[in-house]
Amino acid sequence: MDLFKKNWFTESSDMWPGGTFSFEVKEVLHSEKSEFQDILVLDTTTFGRVLVLDGIVQCSQKDEFSYQEMISFLPLFCHKNPEKVLIVGGGDGGVAREVAKHPQVKQIVQVEIDAKVIDVSKKYLPFMAVGFESEKLKLHVGDGFEFMKNHSNEFDVIITDSSDPVGPAVNLFQENYFALMKSALRPGGIVCSQAGTIWNDLDMVTSTLKFCRNQFPAAAYAIASVPTYPSGQIGFVIGSLDKDIKFDTPQMKLSSEDEKKMNLRYYNSDIHKAAFVLPTFVKSHLA
Amino acid sequence: MDLFKKNWFTESSDMWPGGTFSFEVKEVLHSEKSEFQDILVLDTTTFGRVLVLDGIVQCSQKDEFSYQEMISFLPLFCHKNPEKVLIVGGGDGGVAREVAKHPQVKQIVQVEIDAKVIDVSKKYLPFMAVGFESEKLKLHVGDGFEFMKNHSNEFDVIITDSSDPVGPAVNLFQENYFALMKSALRPGGIVCSQAGTIWNDLDMVTSTLKFCRNQFPAAAYAIASVPTYPSGQIGFVIGSLDKDIKFDTPQMKLSSEDEKKMNLRYYNSDIHKAAFVLPTFVKSHLA
Repeated sequence: MDLFKKNWFTESSDMWPGGTFSFEVKEVLHSEKSEFQDILVLDTTTFGRVLVLDGIVQCSQKDEFSYQEMISFLPLFCHKNPEKVLIVGGGDGGVAREVAKHPQVKQIVQVEIDAKVIDVSKKYLPFMAVGFESEKLKLHVGDGFEFMKNHSNEFDVIITDSSDPVGPAVNLFQENYFALMKSALRPGGIVCSQAGTIWNDLDMVTSTLKFCRNQFPAAAYAIASVPTYPSGQIGFVIGSLDKDIKFDTPQMKLSSEDEKKMNLRYYNSDIHKAAFVLPTFVKSHLA
Repeated sequence: MDLFKKNWFTESSDMWPGGTFSFEVKEVLHSEKSEFQDILVLDTTTFGRVLVLDGIVQCSQKDEFSYQEMISFLPLFCHKNPEKVLIVGGGDGGVAREVAKHPQVKQIVQVEIDAKVIDVSKKYLPFMAVGFESEKLKLHVGDGFEFMKNHSNEFDVIITDSSDPVGPAVNLFQENYFALMKSALRPGGIVCSQAGTIWNDLDMVTSTLKFCRNQFPAAAYAIASVPTYPSGQIGFVIGSLDKDIKFDTPQMKLSSEDEKKMNLRYYNSDIHKAAFVLPTFVKSHLA
């Protein structure tokens, strides 16, 4: 399929056959093949800048905040005191930007496998890459899987901000990845992973949630609205070492003033609760 | 723009410039120009049958249930005893199908302006047009606006299942339409209208909600996930003559057994509550 047709870029994948989303492109800002993947940065007419890896849209300037805030604050506000956080992936810097805002977070360790994604984001996506400037952050280039083997009992929260389970991210959707994260957590620790949509990937959501449930005494799936992802929705699998956790009840209730201070555009304490409420067909499928 | 390219149909509109969704088409089942609009029915590879009016996707077989259930059951379960319901638009029959399931509903009156949409739906979209077979339903072909002028103080709930505010539906997004609905309601009555998305039409949502607030002592905006609509989301403006109504608290709590009996695939009592919880940027914009 010709991905550029009269200045339109079309995202197409076997993961969601029969339907495609296209962006009108003003300019291709960057295109390269790194050791791990094709990296493309577009400037679009109405979605701002868009990062594309191996042909799949990772984020657009218009709506990246909903994904970044939700994958960060759902697990962080489920935890009583998330002092030390590990981010696996997240090479654009958006998750680091959000995690650093949490008042209790003291240290952030991030492991991104592809240095080129970091470089490109710093150059073309500064609204996300600003996350790399936090004094709380220590950034490593390497394999998150390997990194965790040498870091057990160390983190309160682990956020896996990966691409979909094709290419370099495929290992991050397996049960042994959840086992490894479990060993890297301190007591009471929480994990949160990007885990596909209810409309296109319900079997993938189900298997990822099952892997998480096999390793963690408590696990759940939560959803958010992100228009530039296929079907306009994305979900997160969350697991906790605390079997009595109430995922839908944040440990801290944010005021409107807190929301402003943290520059929250999507997340709020009510959205936290609502994110765990699922349509009937999803509830039945995951039961 | 060439809408059919190598068997792909592309939905494109000035309402959401710079981004388009495309369906892979197996067969064009029907195409005609009625007195009011272009009517197109597609059979697609992964979304089933798709109804398109004036180039805009109205519903797909894959996900129509989320829209139909939410626009119907949000207002119906907000009402203590919704015995008589008016549907304006809804020519595919999907809303009638859902409204007829509500145990308290005794009479449904539907006014659809375009007889051709009804005919085409009966022929090609029987999974929705089954709604026309309900014994509770009386179907009129005509202008909902004109119809209500002659029917005051008659309905408990009015559902406006319209296309977007271009073409035949433009009058249904004006303040005098809300005034007219108010006069057609019995005391304690409730209205619910399709009202655009948070990502593409926030100004339209705001103005529609304002018109509703000007006419009704209580009004709110609620959201649902529908992947085949632009941005994968749709919203509803709901108004009530009861100033003390709690929109997010349904009058009847459905059990899992109720959900099964009513064949609910999206709506449930928790989703009802969650639908009124809005992302921070929407909350601020609508405040």
